[in-house]
Amino acid sequence: MNRFDGRKTDELRPVKIIKDFTRYAEGSVLIEWGNTKVLCNASVEESVPPFKKGSGEGWVTAEYSMLPRATATRNKRDINKLKLNQRSTEIQRLIGRALRAAVDFTELGERSITVDCDVLQADGGTRTASITGGFVALAMACRKLVAEGLIEKMPLHRYISAVSVGVVDGVAMADLCYEEDSAAEVDMNIIMTDEGNFVEVQGTGEHGTFTQEQLLELLALGRKAAGELKQLQQAALDGLELS
Amino acid sequence: MNRFDGRKTDELRPVKIIKDFTRYAEGSVLIEWGNTKVLCNASVEESVPPFKKGSGEGWVTAEYSMLPRATATRNKRDINKLKLNQRSTEIQRLIGRALRAAVDFTELGERSITVDCDVLQADGGTRTASITGGFVALAMACRKLVAEGLIEKMPLHRYISAVSVGVVDGVAMADLCYEEDSAAEVDMNIIMTDEGNFVEVQGTGEHGTFTQEQLLELLALGRKAAGELKQLQQAALDGLELS
Amino acid sequence: MNRFDGRKTDELRPVKIIKDFTRYAEGSVLIEWGNTKVLCNASVEESVPPFKKGSGEGWVTAEYSMLPRATATRNKRDINKLKLNQRSTEIQRLIGRALRAAVDFTELGERSITVDCDVLQADGGTRTASITGGFVALAMACRKLVAEGLIEKMPLHRYISAVSVGVVDGVAMADLCYEEDSAAEVDMNIIMTDEGNFVEVQGTGEHGTFTQEQLLELLALGRKAAGELKQLQQAALDGLELS
Amino acid sequence: MNRFDGRKTDELRPVKIIKDFTRYAEGSVLIEWGNTKVLCNASVEESVPPFKKGSGEGWVTAEYSMLPRATATRNKRDINKLKLNQRSTEIQRLIGRALRAAVDFTELGERSITVDCDVLQADGGTRTASITGGFVALAMACRKLVAEGLIEKMPLHRYISAVSVGVVDGVAMADLCYEEDSAAEVDMNIIMTDEGNFVEVQGTGEHGTFTQEQLLELLALGRKAAGELKQLQQAALDGLELS
Amino acid sequence: MNRFDGRKTDELRPVKIIKDFTRYAEGSVLIEWGNTKVLCNASVEESVPPFKKGSGEGWVTAEYSMLPRATATRNKRDINKLKLNQRSTEIQRLIGRALRAAVDFTELGERSITVDCDVLQADGGTRTASITGGFVALAMACRKLVAEGLIEKMPLHRYISAVSVGVVDGVAMADLCYEEDSAAEVDMNIIMTDEGNFVEVQGTGEHGTFTQEQLLELLALGRKAAGELKQLQQAALDGLELS
Amino acid sequence: MNRFDGRKTDELRPVKIIKDFTRYAEGSVLIEWGNTKVLCNASVEESVPPFKKGSGEGWVTAEYSMLPRATATRNKRDINKLKLNQRSTEIQRLIGRALRAAVDFTELGERSITVDCDVLQADGGTRTASITGGFVALAMACRKLVAEGLIEKMPLHRYISAVSVGVVDGVAMADLCYEEDSAAEVDMNIIMTDEGNFVEVQGTGEHGTFTQEQLLELLALGRKAAGELKQLQQAALDGLELS
Repeated sequence: MNRFDGRKTDELRPVKIIKDFTRYAEGSVLIEWGNTKVLCNASVEESVPPFKKGSGEGWVTAEYSMLPRATATRNKRDINKLKLNQRSTEIQRLIGRALRAAVDFTELGERSITVDCDVLQADGGTRTASITGGFVALAMACRKLVAEGLIEKMPLHRYISAVSVGVVDGVAMADLCYEEDSAAEVDMNIIMTDEGNFVEVQGTGEHGTFTQEQLLELLALGRKAAGELKQLQQAALDGLELS
Repeated sequence: MNRFDGRKTDELRPVKIIKDFTRYAEGSVLIEWGNTKVLCNASVEESVPPFKKGSGEGWVTAEYSMLPRATATRNKRDINKLKLNQRSTEIQRLIGRALRAAVDFTELGERSITVDCDVLQADGGTRTASITGGFVALAMACRKLVAEGLIEKMPLHRYISAVSVGVVDGVAMADLCYEEDSAAEVDMNIIMTDEGNFVEVQGTGEHGTFTQEQLLELLALGRKAAGELKQLQQAALDGLELS
Repeated sequence: MNRFDGRKTDELRPVKIIKDFTRYAEGSVLIEWGNTKVLCNASVEESVPPFKKGSGEGWVTAEYSMLPRATATRNKRDINKLKLNQRSTEIQRLIGRALRAAVDFTELGERSITVDCDVLQADGGTRTASITGGFVALAMACRKLVAEGLIEKMPLHRYISAVSVGVVDGVAMADLCYEEDSAAEVDMNIIMTDEGNFVEVQGTGEHGTFTQEQLLELLALGRKAAGELKQLQQAALDGLELS
Repeated sequence: MNRFDGRKTDELRPVKIIKDFTRYAEGSVLIEWGNTKVLCNASVEESVPPFKKGSGEGWVTAEYSMLPRATATRNKRDINKLKLNQRSTEIQRLIGRALRAAVDFTELGERSITVDCDVLQADGGTRTASITGGFVALAMACRKLVAEGLIEKMPLHRYISAVSVGVVDGVAMADLCYEEDSAAEVDMNIIMTDEGNFVEVQGTGEHGTFTQEQLLELLALGRKAAGELKQLQQAALDGLELS
Repeated sequence: MNRFDGRKTDELRPVKIIKDFTRYAEGSVLIEWGNTKVLCNASVEESVPPFKKGSGEGWVTAEYSMLPRATATRNKRDINKLKLNQRSTEIQRLIGRALRAAVDFTELGERSITVDCDVLQADGGTRTASITGGFVALAMACRKLVAEGLIEKMPLHRYISAVSVGVVDGVAMADLCYEEDSAAEVDMNIIMTDEGNFVEVQGTGEHGTFTQEQLLELLALGRKAAGELKQLQQAALDGLELS
Repeated sequence: MNRFDGRKTDELRPVKIIKDFTRYAEGSVLIEWGNTKVLCNASVEESVPPFKKGSGEGWVTAEYSMLPRATATRNKRDINKLKLNQRSTEIQRLIGRALRAAVDFTELGERSITVDCDVLQADGGTRTASITGGFVALAMACRKLVAEGLIEKMPLHRYISAVSVGVVDGVAMADLCYEEDSAAEVDMNIIMTDEGNFVEVQGTGEHGTFTQEQLLELLALGRKAAGELKQLQQAALDGLELS
């Protein structure tokens, strides 16, 4: 099997996690995953949404957006259409749920962390890159809160990463680039913990349906990738241990 | 194990598919699923979105909305906030993808079918009720196109239904009502064909994560429900066979 | 004179007031008036708009909307155009004024009741059906407040109902259906009390103008209808007396 | 009976119709009615809305807006709230219906006239001033179309004017100023032709209801005012005869 | 050199400052500058924006808008496009900055003054007319605050006026009317104090660029005009001295 | 005089123009100017705005936006407020005017180039960085059009760059960083050509006013910077000559 770019079916594209690409955010990561580039900035705010007021608990949320020319042709900005892009809406809700699965809100205390994922360049897998890079930005922001004495210990209990997997021409493969994604019969996003558990699984038969056997094959690819991604995240975080 | 309302873990709530609750739509279904009530109207329009213009192919899309008092407390209308509810956005994209998995767009011809799913009353499972009922409305609209000679044969090749499953207090169960959904550790929506294949699987660890064993247990519950729902849909459609 | 559907000029279409079609609202009515179906839900909220804060008085307001396929052809949702439909705006202001004419705000106390009128199916007279059905939903909500001991006595002092009347082909008639409404020379909505007084009269010469004689003839039709509608409302409310 | 400002019950405030207050509109009138000042500009456009395309017929529509400080306290602009004011919506629909009652759309030909009514200062009766002044602006624009040879004869067949009437402290009176309007038990807007027919009647029992006797008394006041207003309009239009 | 309308290169069009054209605003001016007419209303509110809360200081802001038929062809209202016109945005920010340069916010105290500049008719120079007229409205509002004893002394320390200048057919000239503005190679707005200092200078090479020599020539024209405008403002303000 | 960061009064911060930071845009530049980072992407589209249709001429426009965490504290996205930021509006209009001053629209032909300036990190001078970097992106896109044979020769006739200058503590200085900008008495943006002419000059007395002497001093600083910036732009463009 020759993949579009010569990779093996279970092989990820090169992933680079560049910390502090920008300077103001409490946690800032530029994640380059193949040709996909996402700037993930985690911002701490000393307030919480209404449904958490007075609870003593914090909150983590995410926003996702693509720059107009992150793609092969230019897209209009949301503000010029006065509508939040529906695909962005769906993705940012996924990122938020994924990151919250790592957080102990009581330990975070009554404050919010917003993880902005702005896609500078898109070549498939922007949502999984956002989760994987966004987790590192989130961890950086939490570590800063600990360093400043605002909280006692890391409010994160596990690593979270994500990868897209899919079936292309009948072959299950990991980390689809744009061309593979466009041609995939099944497209699945797997969000996992470093313990090998699932946080969210979203599989869609783009041009058809898929069987339980295919599902299991894809999950196996996801599990392998999760292990590798955790290593990269941990290296970026100077070996940070969570438990 | 005693469920909230006395059901067995694999038991669905009563599902009623009432056709022609309203009179204008080409396909109209009121689906009552336990206390959840969704009005599903399929509207045919002799035009397609720009990306299908001139392709000879049709398109199917869905819109989802809740009436302000479909829930225990009143929610403001989207138009008064000038924002499409983010949860609604995510759900209507899911319904659209699910229904499109049943359609042969070439046979549909260059026309659109919009399936409006308006929730009159919500008690858990509104998105899966929308898919299950929306499929019947879609089939009614297609059958009308055939009856009127606008297309030669049914452009649907399979039944599609959906059910929510989840893990509550460590127990996997099918068709969560609102109280179970609120308490679930894992919440999963399974969209299946009548051949037992998956169209989409969306599982989320609401308050944690889930294992592959749990995933498989939930999929089995989904498969069983899909069989029952297909029977109900087919009965509502007067035994309509698709292949 | 043969009317479109065989009715006499002063004859109303069959009107059914179905209580508790949905379960969460403090007052819920599905009113079926000929082929027009409107779901009227009255929601109590323990707060008032800014201009009533601290006054000790309550407020009643209404919202009106049509489902996309309530009509022969599908209409886009307001949220997709980001604009509240101008016709809906005009109608919901009318419903609000009409219902408020029945209410003693001091007795209601500093709380709000919102009456949502969602048209499931439209065949003429949706605004008058909304007022007539909305009044019953409002009365149910008020009765619930009394039953729960939140207020001492019914804050409603009279029945309010509404009917459309008009001149079609030179003939004055009551309760126009869609076809009659489309062909009417004069179209008038009459909102009345059970004492035979007017709350609001809105008459428009759609394709011309009208004389005082026509006006008086139409008002007489309205008065007759108001008596019948009050009987239906009172029966639905188990004979409730207001004074 | 002493009215707030010494007028008799059937006496109008001074009405001044100033033509060509601005120079670009095809018809431009500043109407000063007591302290109410409305700038009415009629703009001709050589296009029609979609529902009139290809019909050979024209269209007339109106827009109504108040400047932020037309009133005793400043109101935010609609654009800053991103919502068309609901009261403005209701009023501009009324103005449009009223003016269209005067127009023969076939004679107008396939073109539109928009009458913008911008309230510079409000002291009661802004909607009726808009209709009365807007009619003159509309007639000026039509006369210009005739003068330029674009149409053969005036597409207006009758004068239209409007006045507010009401019951204050139990007394029926014409042309309510702001203080009277605020205190009125019944508030009615009467739009009439110069033949003494009604175009629209909108009566509301603001703080109660009204009887048929009151209605008739108010209509008589409206008829008297319509005669006077027609004289003022005709004088402003240099004695223009319509038939 | 013959200018379009016979004026000398440094000659302003006739400027009329009409006070109290409307009656509610704390300061109200209709400025007629050639054929440009702008209604400038200054409204005092006893509150400040969040960034001034608790500072003891006030704030001055401006809003600018054109009526739909202020121009040769009709423009849609912002609210119908749901977007604040970008040109209006730029202009109202300029007016706000200009007026604030005259104000001592400590002396104003913790209150806001909003200066609404609504263009009734546009013939070039609407932004400079808005600043020049808006300053007078602002001064009237401040004088009223002093008269009412709300503040001790005038919180304005200098006169501010503005004029447009430009290069047309190679000739520098003051106060461009619409035709000159459309044809200008360089277009500059100069906001000055009565001491001959600059508040803001905005010069644009519309169809090219401009040299420092041209810039200096334009500034000289601006300085001359500022002197004349200050006389007109001061006369309108009954000789008010500021220092 | 010691500047905040040790620079001389006429000394620019280090400016880096990184080409092809992203890969899809016809011209792509990341400009790093001190700590300010702006991604400038020029996108060619084979269509023009309505006012250029059929003219044979092209158009150039710009959009400007800041990422939420480009600044010390997080700003909400425009789409979440449904309003284009007023400051962004003003800036993108400035960028558009500045870039258009370089373009021969007839040579460009009937196509559009949109220059997106997205601020990744802000430390003063984002609008001048956008113009300076945006010009290089625009030139890259034009060069590509020439290389592909779509146009015959470069439609750019001059270099355009921009710099902010200002008076801080009474001292005129070039290229203000955020701290200097916040403290400046006068703040001026100067857009110049490589011939030493002005395209636009925008000076504001932030906390007061400024004299003609100050203005001239600031213009001299601007002229010096323009020469240096042109060298950097030309080097980035491989020595490209324009005339």
